[in-house]
Amino acid sequence: MAVYTDVSDEDMSAFIAQYGIGDLVSAKGIAEGVENSNYLIRTTQDTFILTLYEKRVKREDLPFFIGLMNHLAEKGLPCPRPIEMPDGTALRDLNDRPAAVTSFLEGMWARRIRKEHCAQLGAALADLHAAGADFPMQRRNGLTLGDWRPLFEKSEARAHEVHKDMAPLIRAELDFLEANWPKDLPIGVCHADMFPDNVFFIGDRLSGVIDFYFACTDFLAYDLAICLNAWCFERDRSFNVTKARALLSNYAQHRPLTSAEIEALPILARGSAMRFLLTRLYDWLNCPPGALVRPHDPMDYFDRLRFHQGVSAASAYGFDGS
Amino acid sequence: MAVYTDVSDEDMSAFIAQYGIGDLVSAKGIAEGVENSNYLIRTTQDTFILTLYEKRVKREDLPFFIGLMNHLAEKGLPCPRPIEMPDGTALRDLNDRPAAVTSFLEGMWARRIRKEHCAQLGAALADLHAAGADFPMQRRNGLTLGDWRPLFEKSEARAHEVHKDMAPLIRAELDFLEANWPKDLPIGVCHADMFPDNVFFIGDRLSGVIDFYFACTDFLAYDLAICLNAWCFERDRSFNVTKARALLSNYAQHRPLTSAEIEALPILARGSAMRFLLTRLYDWLNCPPGALVRPHDPMDYFDRLRFHQGVSAASAYGFDGS
Repeated sequence: MAVYTDVSDEDMSAFIAQYGIGDLVSAKGIAEGVENSNYLIRTTQDTFILTLYEKRVKREDLPFFIGLMNHLAEKGLPCPRPIEMPDGTALRDLNDRPAAVTSFLEGMWARRIRKEHCAQLGAALADLHAAGADFPMQRRNGLTLGDWRPLFEKSEARAHEVHKDMAPLIRAELDFLEANWPKDLPIGVCHADMFPDNVFFIGDRLSGVIDFYFACTDFLAYDLAICLNAWCFERDRSFNVTKARALLSNYAQHRPLTSAEIEALPILARGSAMRFLLTRLYDWLNCPPGALVRPHDPMDYFDRLRFHQGVSAASAYGFDGS
Repeated sequence: MAVYTDVSDEDMSAFIAQYGIGDLVSAKGIAEGVENSNYLIRTTQDTFILTLYEKRVKREDLPFFIGLMNHLAEKGLPCPRPIEMPDGTALRDLNDRPAAVTSFLEGMWARRIRKEHCAQLGAALADLHAAGADFPMQRRNGLTLGDWRPLFEKSEARAHEVHKDMAPLIRAELDFLEANWPKDLPIGVCHADMFPDNVFFIGDRLSGVIDFYFACTDFLAYDLAICLNAWCFERDRSFNVTKARALLSNYAQHRPLTSAEIEALPILARGSAMRFLLTRLYDWLNCPPGALVRPHDPMDYFDRLRFHQGVSAASAYGFDGS
């Protein structure tokens, strides 16, 4: 939870006035989101989200993120729609940071995930992948195979502080992943951070997907593997095969998986567990005193990784390919 | 900025359903307010604020706060109106905390204070005092004269860490305040925390007063002295007499001050500076590592106190009594 940049009422009013969406009448900093500063704003016309992009988001990546949200919203996906100024630009600086205004999405994220949520998620992710197929821009995934070992090296010396087996497990797993990572799977636009707090529901109906700031061009099935890790484990870290079946089968109904994708699911799940294990391990070891954001426990993904190491086929995820 | 209590979507939906204000469709934790957890919620009917009262607010004080907001809102003051359930109760537990839903007030707090804001504030504070005159409940101010010395004793040994003159200045000032504090001024409902972030404006028009969780029964002119300290000093800690004049004269136009109140303004300003100096000093020295809230610099109020020590009459505040 954080609002890193505090904007004066006058600066914010003047900024919003550029969009032609009415006069600003209220702005509340939102205590969610760890990368950027978000304000829920109300104008005389409607409710919007104002995002100020903080340092972890690269300025040169913003046209991809904004363009993608626009593309997906145009296709009817329930994602934030960037508001354009009369001259067609959506991004402009506010308090020396790039900032954008997007539409507001109703709904709440599911604190207690049920299989109905996973079913809706599977369909929405497949729809997102289908809608992204003709999006013309590309962005390299900055947290994939080749990035993991350099990231691990920043934490390696202190990894034992979290768990005595952490460093050897990661080292052996990186060897395995580098030797066996798939090469020829369908590629396209991935959300790449589809965690429960980025997906809104009204009742059981999925009403919104937010936070496209890790979106990139990568294996589509890797995005599905991220969801498998983020949605289908219980708080005690046990795997819930009912939720996994709901996720995978509903995805496949909206975008059929190739046999190569199905076969690759276990290694993609291992890779995605590695990706979040490494960033969480780094953040855990490098959390500054007084930080506004409490880091996630890397052990959640240590255990997920070990679970997937014991999986030899997608059938262990409750998925028979249909 | 903080949301201390995270509430599940299901618990929150069930809680809101009790009020008969429509179905919950959105809830965002607000990154403002240091005492309680606040959510901006939207239902199918309207927008509201949901507050969960955290430990610093005593459960037995809540009926006073809720009753007062209700009383003032009924009289047309722009303050949050507690929403009652069909059985007439406004307070009920959520996640083991007392919680209430209030109306949402538009407007933004003034980051850069102008004299027009101070003028509006003076009028609104006087109106609040007038509207509170027939409020039947009472609540002792827990941070007034008799409370200051015990509070200081918790910080005394380490006060020199902030400024070498801190402890001797406070000691001498407490002697002075205890010997000279007024006894017979008009008493009534005070907001007692009317800082800029608790007062909303749309343009120059005051649109809301929030955060009644320090409200109490005390000298009305003490409440005005709090505003003098909170609104009429610049960032460099210099006193702005133009803003003070706007505050005091507009207050007096809506509720005439007695000559005893005018005469007491300098000592009330010293007392109110002491109150905030002591709490900020304590919070500064006792801020836990990893705290979500950054403490205010106690030196702001050290300097204000020294300023008021040099004031012999309200005329120094630009106020001639009319």
